[in-house]
Amino acid sequence: LTVSIIIAEASLELVPNELQNHPSVRHEALRRNKSVSKILLDRSLHHSAMLRLENSEKRGRPDLVHMTLLQITCAPIFLNGKINAYVHTVNNEVMELENAVRIPKSYFRFQGLMEKLLAGGRSITEGKNLISLSKMTLPRLVQSIGARKVIGFSRLGQKKPLELIAEENIGAENVALVVGGFAKGTFSNETSSVLDCKYSISNYSLDSHVVCARVLYEFEKKILR
Amino acid sequence: LTVSIIIAEASLELVPNELQNHPSVRHEALRRNKSVSKILLDRSLHHSAMLRLENSEKRGRPDLVHMTLLQITCAPIFLNGKINAYVHTVNNEVMELENAVRIPKSYFRFQGLMEKLLAGGRSITEGKNLISLSKMTLPRLVQSIGARKVIGFSRLGQKKPLELIAEENIGAENVALVVGGFAKGTFSNETSSVLDCKYSISNYSLDSHVVCARVLYEFEKKILR
Repeated sequence: LTVSIIIAEASLELVPNELQNHPSVRHEALRRNKSVSKILLDRSLHHSAMLRLENSEKRGRPDLVHMTLLQITCAPIFLNGKINAYVHTVNNEVMELENAVRIPKSYFRFQGLMEKLLAGGRSITEGKNLISLSKMTLPRLVQSIGARKVIGFSRLGQKKPLELIAEENIGAENVALVVGGFAKGTFSNETSSVLDCKYSISNYSLDSHVVCARVLYEFEKKILR
Repeated sequence: LTVSIIIAEASLELVPNELQNHPSVRHEALRRNKSVSKILLDRSLHHSAMLRLENSEKRGRPDLVHMTLLQITCAPIFLNGKINAYVHTVNNEVMELENAVRIPKSYFRFQGLMEKLLAGGRSITEGKNLISLSKMTLPRLVQSIGARKVIGFSRLGQKKPLELIAEENIGAENVALVVGGFAKGTFSNETSSVLDCKYSISNYSLDSHVVCARVLYEFEKKILR
């Protein structure tokens, strides 16, 4: 059994070229003594700059990605190497997280780590690669994982209790679980194209970090106990 | 049925008097254009200042409290008013969260909100009180809630599956669930004194935000579905 969790279309990226001259971006870069091309796009700081940005509702929320990554990397199922974790960003950058990685809980440190990774275009290592970065679409990632079944979680999916989804799929050979890494909107057509099924696990709309916490917990119950 | 969740001994406070002259504190205050008495104690910034601080392992982790609060306030059981939430800090300050409160996901905004609340010593309101602050010990809080049964979660507790704990207690009249809000160490004697029982819900040591996510999810399954 191989289980992977993929955060899809995650709203994590450096400030794009066309916004690097905006006052809010230049102000932050100056304040932090950084280059405008090496800081994370962040809606809470660059809101006015983002108004005309394409696909903007899925962009500039590194805070959400941070929370989601902490839910994943602090779960025993991940710490014990029973699930593989990937972040696919809205710009088709893919991070693969090793089970030994510790994501900083302090946002300042997370911010610095991500800026270094995305600006450097390389891996974060400590002896071995802890986070590897590559340029890859979601369909290509799913193919490289070799997933035989790809399950998406979406409020628009078929209603099904999460325990049942876990129960039905722990016998599968290679399953990938896909959770959106954005604050608003739904999966793109490209993301939807890789999903074999789409489930809704609550009567309520759930944030990405809540979905991840629950998905990992129910799979952990079947796999790790 | 009344269910409450209490984050106990949470590592959230303003920089204490005795550290306000330390260079790391003065530097941050200057950089952020704030008074040294009105910024949060943060180990990732004030580590050297905290070396000789009493009870220091339970202090200066507002990042942990942020994550934990987001797990609570984003859960449908909280959003639907089926659970009451409290933060009891290491300095015996108690915050009561209204179900309408939205905790900022951006750490910068959370930091500002908490600084305003703790320095002002008053409530955060938007028409009505969203977060009320008062000076109160944990035993006094438990008494004011009127909890008939108080359950603590600790890796030192009796091993018991969380589903079973939820199952056994949804019939209770008034139950309080206590989760530690610190990175290291165990409950103080005062905290332990209010617990009727102490359970360990995993074979692994779990972070506070992971415990909260799981506890709320299992109780939500019994109460909200």
